[in-house]
Amino acid sequence: MSQELPHEFLSSLRTSRIEALSDGIFAIAMTLLILQIEVPDLHGSQGEELRLLLKLWPKFLSYGVGFTVLGVYWMGQHIQFHLIRKADQPLLWLTMFFLMLIAAIPFSAKLIGGYVHFQPIVVFYGCHLIAIGLVHCAIWRYASTNRRLVEVHLSPEIIRLQTLLAIIPPGIYLAAIALSFLSTLASVIIYAIVPAVYIVVPHFFFRHRRQRT
Amino acid sequence: MSQELPHEFLSSLRTSRIEALSDGIFAIAMTLLILQIEVPDLHGSQGEELRLLLKLWPKFLSYGVGFTVLGVYWMGQHIQFHLIRKADQPLLWLTMFFLMLIAAIPFSAKLIGGYVHFQPIVVFYGCHLIAIGLVHCAIWRYASTNRRLVEVHLSPEIIRLQTLLAIIPPGIYLAAIALSFLSTLASVIIYAIVPAVYIVVPHFFFRHRRQRT
Amino acid sequence: MSQELPHEFLSSLRTSRIEALSDGIFAIAMTLLILQIEVPDLHGSQGEELRLLLKLWPKFLSYGVGFTVLGVYWMGQHIQFHLIRKADQPLLWLTMFFLMLIAAIPFSAKLIGGYVHFQPIVVFYGCHLIAIGLVHCAIWRYASTNRRLVEVHLSPEIIRLQTLLAIIPPGIYLAAIALSFLSTLASVIIYAIVPAVYIVVPHFFFRHRRQRT
Amino acid sequence: MSQELPHEFLSSLRTSRIEALSDGIFAIAMTLLILQIEVPDLHGSQGEELRLLLKLWPKFLSYGVGFTVLGVYWMGQHIQFHLIRKADQPLLWLTMFFLMLIAAIPFSAKLIGGYVHFQPIVVFYGCHLIAIGLVHCAIWRYASTNRRLVEVHLSPEIIRLQTLLAIIPPGIYLAAIALSFLSTLASVIIYAIVPAVYIVVPHFFFRHRRQRT
Repeated sequence: MSQELPHEFLSSLRTSRIEALSDGIFAIAMTLLILQIEVPDLHGSQGEELRLLLKLWPKFLSYGVGFTVLGVYWMGQHIQFHLIRKADQPLLWLTMFFLMLIAAIPFSAKLIGGYVHFQPIVVFYGCHLIAIGLVHCAIWRYASTNRRLVEVHLSPEIIRLQTLLAIIPPGIYLAAIALSFLSTLASVIIYAIVPAVYIVVPHFFFRHRRQRT
Repeated sequence: MSQELPHEFLSSLRTSRIEALSDGIFAIAMTLLILQIEVPDLHGSQGEELRLLLKLWPKFLSYGVGFTVLGVYWMGQHIQFHLIRKADQPLLWLTMFFLMLIAAIPFSAKLIGGYVHFQPIVVFYGCHLIAIGLVHCAIWRYASTNRRLVEVHLSPEIIRLQTLLAIIPPGIYLAAIALSFLSTLASVIIYAIVPAVYIVVPHFFFRHRRQRT
Repeated sequence: MSQELPHEFLSSLRTSRIEALSDGIFAIAMTLLILQIEVPDLHGSQGEELRLLLKLWPKFLSYGVGFTVLGVYWMGQHIQFHLIRKADQPLLWLTMFFLMLIAAIPFSAKLIGGYVHFQPIVVFYGCHLIAIGLVHCAIWRYASTNRRLVEVHLSPEIIRLQTLLAIIPPGIYLAAIALSFLSTLASVIIYAIVPAVYIVVPHFFFRHRRQRT
Repeated sequence: MSQELPHEFLSSLRTSRIEALSDGIFAIAMTLLILQIEVPDLHGSQGEELRLLLKLWPKFLSYGVGFTVLGVYWMGQHIQFHLIRKADQPLLWLTMFFLMLIAAIPFSAKLIGGYVHFQPIVVFYGCHLIAIGLVHCAIWRYASTNRRLVEVHLSPEIIRLQTLLAIIPPGIYLAAIALSFLSTLASVIIYAIVPAVYIVVPHFFFRHRRQRT
């Protein structure tokens, strides 16, 4: 077995190993999010401590949004890699690029947590989310085109559905960026709601479809 | 196998995957706790270094309490997921919310480590612990009601016992918050003791019960 | 299977789960060590950048020592848990306390990296290492006394050898603390050498023994 | 089974365990890289926020380079440990030293992200990369010489190829260091490109060879 060339070994190994690395990176990024919330100086606060803490609400909101976004893409990646059977070089490098964007979420979360009312920052955050969504979609497109890396008999319906689920969020984020010119807070709320919808909708969608069949 | 819809796959996969993600988040949160203890400036301390270090005791105490709380809930979650057989969307999202609160413990630990004598901060910390306890309890209630996600034959006794074990700590934390108006240190000591009791008591309880049967 | 009481489940599960949690905590503590080395301000350094970096040598030394100490105890814990067959409450809590001390190494490493010439700090670091060594030893004593948690037929020779290997380092660290009154650097060098010896010596010891048998 | 001496147990266990520890350290180092990018103070930036963010480009570049370097060596280590069948003490310690250098990448990344135009810093970063490459190569030389730890029938061709793949990057980094006297940016770009080439080239090399056989 060790006689196979390292390259062949890589092809077979990658899907499970890259998933383990991804799990680690997702868990760490989720936990590092909290480091962005700095403890304020409360000396001389004269009983106003809780009010000073509540003034941190943009940071708490940013923590919640960041955590949810990471949770949803962690889930999305697992679904993708459940359907992907083989791996090759381009898939590996797309995934590395995907993880590079994921691991950068704590930076963007800190940025928007500190400057939630700065419209250009809200745009920057939206672009980060769009980039993640597009790479997520690109991975699926690459793997599923001509059933390159997925099972040969995978139904075209599932392939189309997965593409749809991957491309919708970037579209909504684009709309949220446009909205930021009116209200930055509205944009941030959309950033927060999309991940939730992204998971809840397919849930009802599948339940509905199954009742029809 | 790959023909099953992604949604069905998720239901079967989730309990093991969410446990792996949880293990990562717990381990990282436990280790990040230490970052809250900043090294003091000792230049010009003229042989008083150890005394200056000992003045950090509220931070060391907060480290110990935070670590123990995380250890106990890590254990508690493993017991829950040992008894939970299936997963569905609401369970997944309750667990994500649970992990979001767990990953925030380093923030609260830093807060109370710096302001152990500030009564509102002690209240804030207690509320964080109560929130964790309530979500922990909600997960079990959701999974066990009508044996929704647990085994069909799971004895009502275990279901009741698990609920009890999950609901007692928030109750005690509530009492500790009340106590903080008299002594903040007493409250913090209760925060520290409850996790220990939470584990030791069922130990004797089970041993006692087994001798009777 | 789910009918067994949670408590019984815990006994069987713990050794593998606690090992997974330990692996995570060791890996994170090792990596967090690097955060103690702060990048110096090099603006206006006029070509003296490398010299300024080399002046960070106590921090690099502290990084190396911390990493080696963690590496050795990671190894030591794996040997212990290879020999330990069962788990019970006290073992679990001893291990949690052990991990609490392990996760605190980045703090002590930062402390000694900044104040390597402050004798009380060298004493503090030594005490931390002694505490880790003693808890490591206590875990083994607890598990092996009357073969409480190890296999029934485990040879007394291995039990004694493991105890010896666990108790020697704290003894040497105690000597290093005494030496710190003469030279703090000498103490730190001993802190660095002991872990290496701790691994190399049994290597030759076992090789020697095997040739005799 | 527990009767085997701890030393023998270690030999059999190490390759899988050290891989798990390595996975953790790689994932954490990759994620900690983002902490080097500090959020700039944007108050009073008067609509120039995006321009101020873009001025962080050396840090983003350093993030990308560091992430890619870690990704490539993560991959390289997995190939090595796929071919390595046994472990012994020197291999273990070489690997620990390798991980010590890997976990230090966030420090060097922060350094070069802040001082990309400081030639000595570019040299320092290059030396760090060369050290990683040389230890990576030393691990393979040690394991493969006389087929000490690899399979007995491993073809000399693969052994030679792996050595070559391990020794080329340090050579190129050496050239990049020389180049830094002309342009520091050119050196950094080489640091970024090498990892990519390192993976893409063997890909074509193998494909080419296979067509010939």
